[in-house]
Amino acid sequence: MATHDVTFWFDFGSPYAYFAHRRLPAFEKATGAHVISKPFMLGSAFAQTGARPLLDIPLKAAYAKIDLARLARFYDVPFQMPPNAPTVTLAAARIFYGLNATDPAAATTFAKAVFDAAFATGQDVSEQAVVKACLRESGLDEELAAMAQEPEWKQALKDAGAKATESGVFGAPFFVHDGEPFWGVERMDMLIAKLGPVS
Amino acid sequence: MATHDVTFWFDFGSPYAYFAHRRLPAFEKATGAHVISKPFMLGSAFAQTGARPLLDIPLKAAYAKIDLARLARFYDVPFQMPPNAPTVTLAAARIFYGLNATDPAAATTFAKAVFDAAFATGQDVSEQAVVKACLRESGLDEELAAMAQEPEWKQALKDAGAKATESGVFGAPFFVHDGEPFWGVERMDMLIAKLGPVS
Repeated sequence: MATHDVTFWFDFGSPYAYFAHRRLPAFEKATGAHVISKPFMLGSAFAQTGARPLLDIPLKAAYAKIDLARLARFYDVPFQMPPNAPTVTLAAARIFYGLNATDPAAATTFAKAVFDAAFATGQDVSEQAVVKACLRESGLDEELAAMAQEPEWKQALKDAGAKATESGVFGAPFFVHDGEPFWGVERMDMLIAKLGPVS
Repeated sequence: MATHDVTFWFDFGSPYAYFAHRRLPAFEKATGAHVISKPFMLGSAFAQTGARPLLDIPLKAAYAKIDLARLARFYDVPFQMPPNAPTVTLAAARIFYGLNATDPAAATTFAKAVFDAAFATGQDVSEQAVVKACLRESGLDEELAAMAQEPEWKQALKDAGAKATESGVFGAPFFVHDGEPFWGVERMDMLIAKLGPVS
């Protein structure tokens, strides 16, 4: 890994990860960092740590509703919670790895389409029709949605989850730079302070 | 409550609350806000929400160790974890309410002494000798430590805990302004953005 490689761990179902994803272009510009995106299943990580989704804890869910709306204003991005959150985002994550294996730029475009579907317009990205629409919007063939059922990409996502656990990742968004962990969208500020401005 | 009254909920045993407390002078200067300090027992709040102290969750404890050291550098304040953290800070909190009833300035000075004992020099503030030293350093009689056993201040702390729960406070530091909750030291930035600079 080069010094300025930063791994970005996320779940497409995490609204806080959506904000982090929205901040990526400015983050990359400010730091010159090369961001390596790694979707994983946050629910599987929670099962290992005994944590529960924020939205399943009454007091914290009420707080998160206020906090997320505030973050949207603070970062000046559109925001709408999808129905039935937290959403299980297996298909989108598997397709991301499938695309990434041969065309990283397509995977990046697809990731943006999925995050925006989930949280800019509040759609349920666990639905195949929504995933297909994200592929089309990314200029890709909607039949690529079939990658969600291919053993190779199922395994790629499982491997990512194992790697996340091994790396001490227990939440999302979660950034790792040179072994140093940064949990939460607001810790991007500390990562920017660490990496410093582009010289 | 005046528009710029801000309630600051904390536990003297929370290192993140220590950083928030250290930021208070600059915060008050930047916003013109009047901060009302309210220590409470975070452990009691956790018992109600089913949360566990960060330091009792293996993965998160390892992360917190890195994160706290980083925050100390970021905010440029001395930092040392006390032994046996998380510390039960009943006595200090009761004495705070006892002092505050008749001499708010003394309570404020004592709070700073307790936070600094706990996290600037890493002492165990559950020990009576440490609490007495904090009183002396605040220019107060160390015999005031006896307030920790007085029913009136025991009740004041219980009442604060009940009020915290009623106000939706589930962590520390926790700020409330005009009904809007802000959880975590980094949310002070959003509160500053909301209250705006002093005109």
